[in-house]
Amino acid sequence: MRVTILTTGGTIEKTYNERDGSLRNYHTILLKMLATLRLPDLEVTYDQVVLKDSLEMTKDDRVRILQATQQALACSDAVMILHGTDTLVQTGELLHRELRDLFVPVILTGAMRPYEFRDTDALQNVIEALLAARLVSPGVYAVMHNRVLRFPGVRKDAERLTFTKL
Amino acid sequence: MRVTILTTGGTIEKTYNERDGSLRNYHTILLKMLATLRLPDLEVTYDQVVLKDSLEMTKDDRVRILQATQQALACSDAVMILHGTDTLVQTGELLHRELRDLFVPVILTGAMRPYEFRDTDALQNVIEALLAARLVSPGVYAVMHNRVLRFPGVRKDAERLTFTKL
Amino acid sequence: MRVTILTTGGTIEKTYNERDGSLRNYHTILLKMLATLRLPDLEVTYDQVVLKDSLEMTKDDRVRILQATQQALACSDAVMILHGTDTLVQTGELLHRELRDLFVPVILTGAMRPYEFRDTDALQNVIEALLAARLVSPGVYAVMHNRVLRFPGVRKDAERLTFTKL
Amino acid sequence: MRVTILTTGGTIEKTYNERDGSLRNYHTILLKMLATLRLPDLEVTYDQVVLKDSLEMTKDDRVRILQATQQALACSDAVMILHGTDTLVQTGELLHRELRDLFVPVILTGAMRPYEFRDTDALQNVIEALLAARLVSPGVYAVMHNRVLRFPGVRKDAERLTFTKL
Repeated sequence: MRVTILTTGGTIEKTYNERDGSLRNYHTILLKMLATLRLPDLEVTYDQVVLKDSLEMTKDDRVRILQATQQALACSDAVMILHGTDTLVQTGELLHRELRDLFVPVILTGAMRPYEFRDTDALQNVIEALLAARLVSPGVYAVMHNRVLRFPGVRKDAERLTFTKL
Repeated sequence: MRVTILTTGGTIEKTYNERDGSLRNYHTILLKMLATLRLPDLEVTYDQVVLKDSLEMTKDDRVRILQATQQALACSDAVMILHGTDTLVQTGELLHRELRDLFVPVILTGAMRPYEFRDTDALQNVIEALLAARLVSPGVYAVMHNRVLRFPGVRKDAERLTFTKL
Repeated sequence: MRVTILTTGGTIEKTYNERDGSLRNYHTILLKMLATLRLPDLEVTYDQVVLKDSLEMTKDDRVRILQATQQALACSDAVMILHGTDTLVQTGELLHRELRDLFVPVILTGAMRPYEFRDTDALQNVIEALLAARLVSPGVYAVMHNRVLRFPGVRKDAERLTFTKL
Repeated sequence: MRVTILTTGGTIEKTYNERDGSLRNYHTILLKMLATLRLPDLEVTYDQVVLKDSLEMTKDDRVRILQATQQALACSDAVMILHGTDTLVQTGELLHRELRDLFVPVILTGAMRPYEFRDTDALQNVIEALLAARLVSPGVYAVMHNRVLRFPGVRKDAERLTFTKL
C-alpha cells in the first residue's frame, strides 16, 4: 500500500518558539508523528506543499494543493492531506469539485490541538486517516475523531470542536 | 453508532505492581485508554469477560468470549475485543466458525507492548479498531498496525511482531 | 516540610484554547503538575497571586507577589514561586531587596516551554525547585535547568534560553 | 560541574521484551533519560558497572560498585548511582562504611516503577539526584521522592513504597 501525505501546516503542525513564545507553522511535524506509529506494510511518500495557518491560505495555495494531489494520485493507493481545520472544508470542497473520476481515496485530516501538546488529537486523527485510506471507496473525505465524512457537505462544528455532515 | 467492547486481559492490559515488580493482568485499562480519545459520536458499552494472559486462556474462557460476543451483537453496531496477541488467532478462528450470519463486524485487537508503556502500540491499535468498526463489512477481523485482516487465515508473525494473512 | 507555592502565570502556565488557537494564561496548571510527582513528605499550600504573561506584569503585580511571599513566610519552611522567565529576574531582585532577615528560602522557577507541551522543561524545573527548597540556606533563588542561582545578580541568558549568574 | 553516573540495572532500568513479554534489565536507559533533561552546565560521564535486578546482586557486584565509585571520585564533583531499590540500602551502607574522607557527595537513586512506564518516578528521582549532587555536603545519600536521606540508617519503606530514615 502506497500513501502520499501532503502537508500544508495548520494547527496540527504548529510548534513552539522558545525565543519569542509564539506558536506557529515553522516546519512539518509529520516525520516525528510517523516515527511513533507501527506501519509495517505502508509505503509513505510525503511532500510539504504549503506551510501556514489555514486562515491565511490563498486561492493560489489551494490550487497548489489541488495540483500536488493530482500528481500524487498517479502513483499512490491513497492521498492524505494534513490541513488546518479552519478552512479544511474549503479545500475539501475544491478537491471534490475538481477531482473527477477518482479511483483512490483523498483524505483530509488535521487537529484541534497541535501535535506538540500532551493532549493533542493529532495522533488519533492521523492514525484514523491512514486506516481509512485502506478502507474507503474513491472520493474526498474528512477523517477525524472516529468519523469518516465524505465531501460534499462536510462542515466544521465550531461549538463541539469537531467536524460533521450537514 | 454503538460499539460494545469486551476486555479479556492480554499484553495490552498488563499493569505493573510496584510491590513485587510483576507485570500482570490486574485490571482493565480500557477506560483509561478511551479517556485519551475524542469519540464524539460513539456510544461505548464495555464488559470485562476474562482477565488473563492469553496463553493461559482455557477452552471455557474462549466459550465465554463467544457467548459475550453473541449477546453483544444483538444491541451493537460493532463488537470490539481486546485480546492477548499470543492466542488472538485461536479466538478469532473460533468466532469466525461459530458466528454465522453476522450483520455487524467483530474486531479483535491487542498490543505487542502494554498500554502502560511509553512506546506502546495499544492506542494506535484501539484507534484503528474503533475506526474499522465503522467501515468494514460484517465478519470477524484482526485490526492492528494499520492492517485490517479478515478471518479465516490470520496469523501472528512472531518474527516481525505483528499480524498477517497466510 | 511545608512549602507554599505562589503561582503567577508566565510561560510555564500557558494553556491552549482550541476555540481561537491562542496560547495564554487561562488558569494555573500547578495541581496537574503536582499530581504527576511523588511527594510523600511534603505539605503543599498554594495561592494564585497573579495570572499573566510576565512581560505584562505591573509594579502592582510585583508588590502583590512580595506581599503574598511575606504572608507565606510566616507559616512555611520554604516559598516557591512559579513565574514567567521574561521578568523573573526583576521580581527576584525585588524580593531580594525587600525580604530582609529571611530564615527560609524563597525559590523562583518557571519554564522556557509551557507545561502542556510534550518537551516542556516545566516538570524538571518544579522538581528541582521543590528539592532545592529543602537544601538551600535562607535567601532568594532562581532554580532551573539543574542550576541554583542566588540573588542578586541572576540574569536570563536569552541566547542559551536559560538563567545564569552575572 | 562534573558528575559521574554509574548504572547498575534495577527496576529503573528494566525494559520490555516484545518477543517473550518479559520485563528485565536488558540495557541501560540512562542516555534516553538524560536526553529529556536540560543540563546546560553539567558534564556527565557514565559507566555501566552492573546490569541486574538488585535482588540478584552478589557481594562481588557490590565490591565492583564500590571500586567504580572510588575511581570516579578522583575526577568528579559528585558520583550518582542508579540502583535497584530492593538492595539500595545494602549498597549505600557498604559505600558509607568503606568510603572514608569523602570530599564530594555520592548519591544513590532508583525508581519504584521502570523508566519505560508512563507513570514512572524515574525522571523525578534522577532530576532530584542531579540537583542534590550540587547542593549536599560530602557523604553517601539516597535521594528519591523529594527526600534527601544520608547514610547510615536509610531504609526502604515497603509499605509506602519509598525510602525513609530509621
